[in-house]
Order: sequence, then C-alpha cells, then structure tokens
Amino acid sequence: MKSYRLVIDCPDKVGIVAAVSKFLAEHGASIVEANHHRDTTAGWFFMRHEFEADSIELSLEAFKDEFSQLAQQFQMNWKIVDSSKKQNVVLMASRESHCLADLLHRWHSGELDCNIVAVIANHEHLRHMAQWHGLPYHHVTFAKGDKQAAFDEVRELILQYEADTVVLARFMQIFPDVLCQEFAGRVINIHHSFLPSFAGAKPYHQAHERGVKLIGATCHYVTGDLDAGPIIDQEIIRISHRDSIEDMVRKGKECEKQALARGLRSHIEDRVIINGNKTVVFD
Amino acid sequence: MKSYRLVIDCPDKVGIVAAVSKFLAEHGASIVEANHHRDTTAGWFFMRHEFEADSIELSLEAFKDEFSQLAQQFQMNWKIVDSSKKQNVVLMASRESHCLADLLHRWHSGELDCNIVAVIANHEHLRHMAQWHGLPYHHVTFAKGDKQAAFDEVRELILQYEADTVVLARFMQIFPDVLCQEFAGRVINIHHSFLPSFAGAKPYHQAHERGVKLIGATCHYVTGDLDAGPIIDQEIIRISHRDSIEDMVRKGKECEKQALARGLRSHIEDRVIINGNKTVVFD
Amino acid sequence: MKSYRLVIDCPDKVGIVAAVSKFLAEHGASIVEANHHRDTTAGWFFMRHEFEADSIELSLEAFKDEFSQLAQQFQMNWKIVDSSKKQNVVLMASRESHCLADLLHRWHSGELDCNIVAVIANHEHLRHMAQWHGLPYHHVTFAKGDKQAAFDEVRELILQYEADTVVLARFMQIFPDVLCQEFAGRVINIHHSFLPSFAGAKPYHQAHERGVKLIGATCHYVTGDLDAGPIIDQEIIRISHRDSIEDMVRKGKECEKQALARGLRSHIEDRVIINGNKTVVFD
Amino acid sequence: MKSYRLVIDCPDKVGIVAAVSKFLAEHGASIVEANHHRDTTAGWFFMRHEFEADSIELSLEAFKDEFSQLAQQFQMNWKIVDSSKKQNVVLMASRESHCLADLLHRWHSGELDCNIVAVIANHEHLRHMAQWHGLPYHHVTFAKGDKQAAFDEVRELILQYEADTVVLARFMQIFPDVLCQEFAGRVINIHHSFLPSFAGAKPYHQAHERGVKLIGATCHYVTGDLDAGPIIDQEIIRISHRDSIEDMVRKGKECEKQALARGLRSHIEDRVIINGNKTVVFD
Repeated sequence: MKSYRLVIDCPDKVGIVAAVSKFLAEHGASIVEANHHRDTTAGWFFMRHEFEADSIELSLEAFKDEFSQLAQQFQMNWKIVDSSKKQNVVLMASRESHCLADLLHRWHSGELDCNIVAVIANHEHLRHMAQWHGLPYHHVTFAKGDKQAAFDEVRELILQYEADTVVLARFMQIFPDVLCQEFAGRVINIHHSFLPSFAGAKPYHQAHERGVKLIGATCHYVTGDLDAGPIIDQEIIRISHRDSIEDMVRKGKECEKQALARGLRSHIEDRVIINGNKTVVFD
Repeated sequence: MKSYRLVIDCPDKVGIVAAVSKFLAEHGASIVEANHHRDTTAGWFFMRHEFEADSIELSLEAFKDEFSQLAQQFQMNWKIVDSSKKQNVVLMASRESHCLADLLHRWHSGELDCNIVAVIANHEHLRHMAQWHGLPYHHVTFAKGDKQAAFDEVRELILQYEADTVVLARFMQIFPDVLCQEFAGRVINIHHSFLPSFAGAKPYHQAHERGVKLIGATCHYVTGDLDAGPIIDQEIIRISHRDSIEDMVRKGKECEKQALARGLRSHIEDRVIINGNKTVVFD
Repeated sequence: MKSYRLVIDCPDKVGIVAAVSKFLAEHGASIVEANHHRDTTAGWFFMRHEFEADSIELSLEAFKDEFSQLAQQFQMNWKIVDSSKKQNVVLMASRESHCLADLLHRWHSGELDCNIVAVIANHEHLRHMAQWHGLPYHHVTFAKGDKQAAFDEVRELILQYEADTVVLARFMQIFPDVLCQEFAGRVINIHHSFLPSFAGAKPYHQAHERGVKLIGATCHYVTGDLDAGPIIDQEIIRISHRDSIEDMVRKGKECEKQALARGLRSHIEDRVIINGNKTVVFD
Repeated sequence: MKSYRLVIDCPDKVGIVAAVSKFLAEHGASIVEANHHRDTTAGWFFMRHEFEADSIELSLEAFKDEFSQLAQQFQMNWKIVDSSKKQNVVLMASRESHCLADLLHRWHSGELDCNIVAVIANHEHLRHMAQWHGLPYHHVTFAKGDKQAAFDEVRELILQYEADTVVLARFMQIFPDVLCQEFAGRVINIHHSFLPSFAGAKPYHQAHERGVKLIGATCHYVTGDLDAGPIIDQEIIRISHRDSIEDMVRKGKECEKQALARGLRSHIEDRVIINGNKTVVFD
C-alpha cells in the first residue's frame, strides 16, 4: 500500500494539531499512523502523519501547494514523502563483515524498504558479498597522509549514485568535517559502545579495561564531532568478568547489528527528526 | 499541573482525529500528549488526549455537554477525566509482602498518583506495613467451603471505600466470576509467570519443571477465566540451570513488582483501553 | 589453541571434583575453563573442563584409557572432545531465509566453529544462498501423504554427510518420532515463541490473538513431543498494541536468530548436557 | 543450612584447583557451589567454594591452620567465611528514599542475609522509615566548609557499629579519600548512570542533554576517584525522546534499586573479588 508521510517540526503553538488534522480530514486522508511530540524545554513541536495515498483527493504536487500556506503560517520545517519512492542508500564498510551482511540480507529479503545502490569500502575483503547481492563495489584506497583524495572520491560516488543516505557499516575512517556538513542528517554511523562511554578507537578494549558489566552499540548521525552526533538508537548486552576482549567483540556485534538496522529502518521510514543534538524517533 | 484526559474508542472512520483536534483547538486546549491507535482487524479506533485544564475555556460540565454531540456522531465510548481527582485504590494481599511494600512505597513517595484507601488481606501478616502507611487493614477470613461469605465481605469493603480500582498484589484467592463482572476492567492482578505460560498454581514450580531459560510476570485485568484476562504489561528475567525454585521465586519478584507497578500506573493515568481480550496501552 | 573438553555427568557423590581435578593436575593439564553443577533434586552431578591440549602429557587415546577407570568408579557418562575436530553440521530450512543466512554468515566469518556440510530444504528458494557459501543444496520434496519418503531421503543425507548435528533453521515440517530417537540430542530446532507458550503452528498469530506484550523464540532439542524438548536458550523482545502480526514476525526474527545462534554455539562447544527434559548449559 | 565459603585469589599456576579440591575432598566437604576464573592478562587466578559446614570434619580454626600451609605454597590471598556469621551493614542515605526502602524491605523479608545495624543520613527525612524497621537513625549534619567533622562522626559510627560493609544508598556527599582507603573494598555506592558515562553530579540531566536512548545505574566500590571504582553490577532501561528528566529520574530508580540490591547481595555472599580496578563476580 502506497502511503504519504508528512513530517513537520515547528515552534510550539496551540492549534497545530487541529490545523493539520483538519487539513488532512478535509482532503479525505485515511490516517495510518500519527505521532506528535512537544519539546517543552525548546518550545518546539514535532509531528509525523502517515496516510494512505489513495485516500487523498489531491496529487502530491497539489498537496504541496495547498499545504505550504498552512506551513508558512506555523513556520514549519516540513516534507511530504511518497513511500513508494525509495531512498537511495550507499553502504560503506572496511574489513568487518557483520553489519554489511546483516543490512544486505535485510534488504535482500524485503525487510529494509530502500534501494541499496552501492558499497564503498577501503578494503577489498567484502567485494564478493556485495557482488552476490548484485551491487557495484568501490574499493577506495585511503593512503596515509592523503585521505583527502580518498574522501573526494567517496564524495563523487555519493553524488553519482544520488544517495539519499550513507551508512557507515563499521567503516573505520573518520568522516571529514566538510562532508559531515554537506551531508548533514544523511550519514548514519554505528559505534561499538553505548555512547557517550568509550567514544573513539577500540571501544571494546576500553570497556574491558574499565571492567563494565554491560557493553553496547550506538547508531547516530555523523557530525564534525567524533561519535558525538544525534543518537538514533542504542542496544546493550550483559557481560561478566569471564568475557575476554574477543568475547566482547563477538557479543557486541549483536548490538551493533540491531542498533544499526533499527536506526536505519527508522531513518528511511522518515521516523527520525533531528532536534539539536538529539533526535525524536517516532516508532 | 492539572490536566484533563479525554479517552475515546469508536468504530474507525475518516475524520475522527480532525473532528476531535478541531474541537480541542477551538476551545483553546493546550495538548500535553496525544495518542491514537487503529485496530485494522477490528475496524476500531482508540484515542487519548491529555491537555492542560487551565488552557480550555470550558468547565468540565460544559465540555461534557458540548462534546457529547461529537461523541454521538462517531458512536464513541468516551470519558474525560480530571487528573486532580485521584482514583481510590484498594490493595489486596495474602502473605507475600514484596508487591504490597513496593506499591505502598511508590505511593508514599509520590510516584503513584492515586489514593490508596485500604488494604484487604486473607492473613494477618501485613497489618503492620499497612498501618505504618496510615491505612486501614481488613483481615478477611477465607474459610474452606465458605469463600462466598468472605468475598461478600470483600465486595462490601470495595463498595464502602468507593474503590475505583482493586489491585490483587499477590492475593492468592481466585476472584469469583460474579465479582469479576461487577468490577470489570477495574480489578488488576499480577500473575507470576509470562502468560499464557504457566497459568494457575505454582508457576515457578511449573517453570522449573519445564526447564525454561526465562521467567516472568504478567499484569492483567481479572476476568472470569483464570489468568486469561487482558494483559497490560509483562516483564521477564533470564535464569539458568543453576537457579533453584527458591532462586526463581526471588528473581521473579523483581518482575512482579515492575510489571504490576507499571501496569497500575498506566491504568490510573487512564492510558489503558480494553480492546476485547487485549489492551491498548498509550505510554 | 587446541583444547580438550571433558564433559561428565554422574550420580552426585563427595569427591568427584577432587578426583577429576587431581587426575587432570597430575597429568599437567592447564585448565582454561571449569564448570560444575549439582542437581540436588535429581541427585545428579554435571561437570565440564576445558584444558590446553598441549599441556597434558597423555595422548587422547591414553587419556581415555586411564580416565575410564575413574569414570567407572563414579558411574560417569562422559566424553572427551578434541576442539580441533569440528562437528559436521547439516542445516535444514524451508522458505524463510533469516536464520539460514544468519548461521551461514556466522560460520563464514569464523564465529561458529564447526563444518557446515550441507543445506537440506523442502523448497528451492534458498539454493543460491547455500551455493554462494560453497555448500551443496538438497531440495527434498515433501509430498502430502508421503512425507515418509521425504524423511527417508533426509535421513540418508544426514548419514551420508556424517552429520554430528542437524539444525532446523525454520524448517517447517515436523520431524518424525523415529528420527527424533535415532538422532536424539543432535537435532536442534528454533521455535518462534517463548515456549511453552504458543507451541505448534503460527505462534505469532497466537501471540497477537492473546495480546501479549512480549514475544520470543526458543532453541531446543527436538523430541517426539512437538516443541516440548529440552530448552537450550530463549530470547524475547517487547511489543505493544501497535505491532501487527507482520511487525511481530519481523521483530521476532531477531529473537529467533539470536536464540538459535547462541544455542547452536553452546551445543557445538559441548557446553550443553541434557538432564531429563531440561538442559545444563555451561556458558 | 550453614555453609563455609572459601574465597581465594593467587598467581595462576597448574595444580591450584586440584590441590584445593583434594584438600576439600579429603576432609569430606560436600560442595554446594564452586567457581573459578583465570585472568590470563594479569596471570591471576580466582576461586570460590561453598560447602556444607556439617560435612567437613574440621573445626573452622583447624581448617584455617591446615589450609594456611596450602595457601602459603600458592601465595594465596584467602578467607574462609561462616555463612551463619552475618555481616554488619550500615546504610547511608540523603533525601531520596527508594534505595533505602528497597534494601530495608529486602532485609526485613529475609531476602538479604545480613545484619543491617544502623542508618546514617545527612537529612532528617528518612528517620521514620529506619525506626519502623527498628533501626537506630543517625542524622549527621554536613555543614558547608566543615565536612571533615561530619565525616569524622560518620567514621566513628562505622567503627562503633563494627560495620563490615557500608552502603551509600543514594548518599549525596563525596566520601573523602582517607575513608575510602580505610574501608577499601567495604563501601558500596550506587551511581545513577551506566558508568563511565555521566559520572559526577546530575547524571540524568547529563543524559537528557546528550539525548541517549538508554539510561542506567552502576553499583561499585568507592575509591578516591569519584565514580571510578571497581564495578560490581549495572542495569539499564530503554527511554525515548518522550521522557522528560522527571521521567528519567523515575525510570532510573528501577535500575538503581536493582543494581544496588544485586551488587550488595553478591558482596555479602562473598561472591565479589576485587581484581585491580575490576571485579570478579561469581554468580
């Protein structure tokens, strides 16, 4: 079933829900799902409606025209998305295969509703996996001292594939600030710790050193501050003194796969709205 | 902050959200929280709005009058609740103290927003605990062969205290069908298993016998079918072969306390709507 | 590092631990991991030692000879396993790919320490997946009314591949009693509910109908009683009224993959000892 | 049933398990529970045996004498504890009652096997709660600028009550370094975040600010480094954008109560061995 997703954020004010609901009802929209959130600290309002495309008597273009007046009145940031227009997604990876394999299987079996269009990696290891799924695989070499050139190539590929979203599926190079800004809100990373604990390199080693009894993973938007962008989802697993670093790496993979898959799913279904350095996730 | 809670369920139809939102907006309601749910199988719609009492220009009586027309049009079951009118809650217990102590502390420390008005028990054990909290304690004797008389006494007490809600906090007598019907949707039980597994007596023994690796607890409305009423909340905890029945009893208490406290909280905040033998819980 | 695993169960008696520990120490065994469990109800003792193969001054054959005297004295059921002799594992599947893909990736990436030797399925769907992993794929047709012939073929394949373990990775045919007995303790199934709730067909439908707030999956040994064999591992996930059956199927897959992968891992590392209709899992 | 707990840590070496097991078996010890752990990085070995006191033919004194030779040979740190000699425990609190009430109820209902001997607090609020449980309550005033005097008083009380263990049950003053050293390994704190995230003041505010999707609590030994001592247990709970700081405080209490109760239980059952800045917890 084709649906439209109307996603809004704006200054909080009485009457927003009524105005939007009335607009939708007057055009016959049969609502599948509706969510609001009011951030009382920030004085900001967030809203997502999903409704059956067939139920509404307006074309998407006509909807946009008509709604823009209402949107202006409430100073809305807004978008309306056609669920049948799938996002283009580029996956980036290094040597570790578990997140890539997990996302590819979910996509391949119809669980992830997007177009994965290419895999970019800084190693050769995962080419077969991408190719079996019928995907182009781009091995970009990250030479020490000249990562700029490599990231230029990455940028070109992102643009060439018209990627809506880029997923760093255990891609072990730090995204440069300029790219973070160019693709703000569109690059999703999985970090292998429950942030803000153990940001940066070798989080499982850090966790082992500290002697924590839980490890985790965090799915977040990439920003110029390393591992400090808006968090979309997190997952943890219990460990004990018996777990070596290798055990933690193995158990942690479960968290990584789950947090990343859930976070990406929320993102491509337009359920995530960035709110400063936080997120609203309508699940 | 005093708020009103408008809770509705009705046949599903285009325009409900718009009509209700418009009504609220036209009267100036500043919405704190709004939730909808559409049960597509049953063709039924569920809705809960919480809005600031001060924001609306109608008295509660006037609201009821005006809204009833809208309600009729959509064939709504509905209520509007003043959050400052706390529910009267009667707790019932037997010998086990953990659920009773837990609820009493939550209430005493302001976490549970209700009036606990009395404790009824079929044992003497917990009198001190009730009294320390300033509550009347009624020890009702359940003689073998004449439980009817005891339940008549229970019924009298419930009526006398004008209880809105009765909580069976590990009360180990089976509520008779006729009381289940008289107080339908108002009697909450905690069963010490993840239902539908291990209904009935000695669920931890049953779980130990079966060799499960997880145990749990279920908070549900009481109906004439033992342990088969609408489920409000459930909680589980991991166990292993090392856990004896005594360990399971001890660990399970954590689940019981949590599932019951969460379930009761949802109930007294009018977040639960019964949907056949299931529940909609707007949390 | 090659290790030996000494797995024992026997009537409980003072001195077992001392006798075994002394035996190991006298032959220089450097113990990596040791676990005991005493089932006081059954009066039975369970024990698993893993020690470095290089540390011991006996050959495996000599160990078996010498230890058998001790074993006899304590009436032990016992085995000693060389960790470098990987088990042969046959995977069986139907149409659903998630468990198969998950296990294959874990094996392919070195996480599951066994030899997956073949995939048997009653559908054609997953042939490509098996083949990409370099595995033979046997499509066995289960004709209505003559499942016997199909299971004869399955049995032949299991024997032909010298399978130590058979994994029913969402294989949707009921294993006949006679095969359950022939391969007792060697056939592992994943059932898509937290047993004993919702045994049998369509457990997510059953769960949706019942209105539970948690769903799960159970990894267990197959016996003649459907979904009633010894449980190895279980996993659950929280759901709400918002989850349709389709959502439950999707979310439940996470539980299925995790419970099956953990259970199989425990099994192939000789961490599971069957204790009547229960299991001891030394993790 | 009275039992003895033999708790050992020492340099790792072949033969420790055998020597200890042989010693126990030769004196007839009927072992209830046995656990080992080998920290391969540190080259250190940890061991705990619990055995029936009646089963052994030695008095506790005679055991100590005989065992000390073995202990010397392996350079063991060791103790043998009589389970019937309960630890004296002093609880310290401030204004928040949930952890105190939780521990008191667990103790009162027989779940926590220790002698709670007194409550010390820097506020008057919780006196009634302590008194209802028949406990002396000491209100120590912490004047700004002269906390030294207050902590001198606290120290005197700890000594006077012959406390084996001090529990900071949401006690909101920082323990001075000198006390941390004097009572090293005997002061247990509950911090309201999943450390190392959000150490220090107002962790829920920090968590809200950061926009995490999980909050938690950490039970740890107090050392001179604030919130950086060896972790015994941790607990987390899922949150969302809908949770205000108040919601987080409320939900976090569940984690605090559970992590503290479990950690304290492990400690008083001599299941925790400190290993540098980490812990081995034999559960």
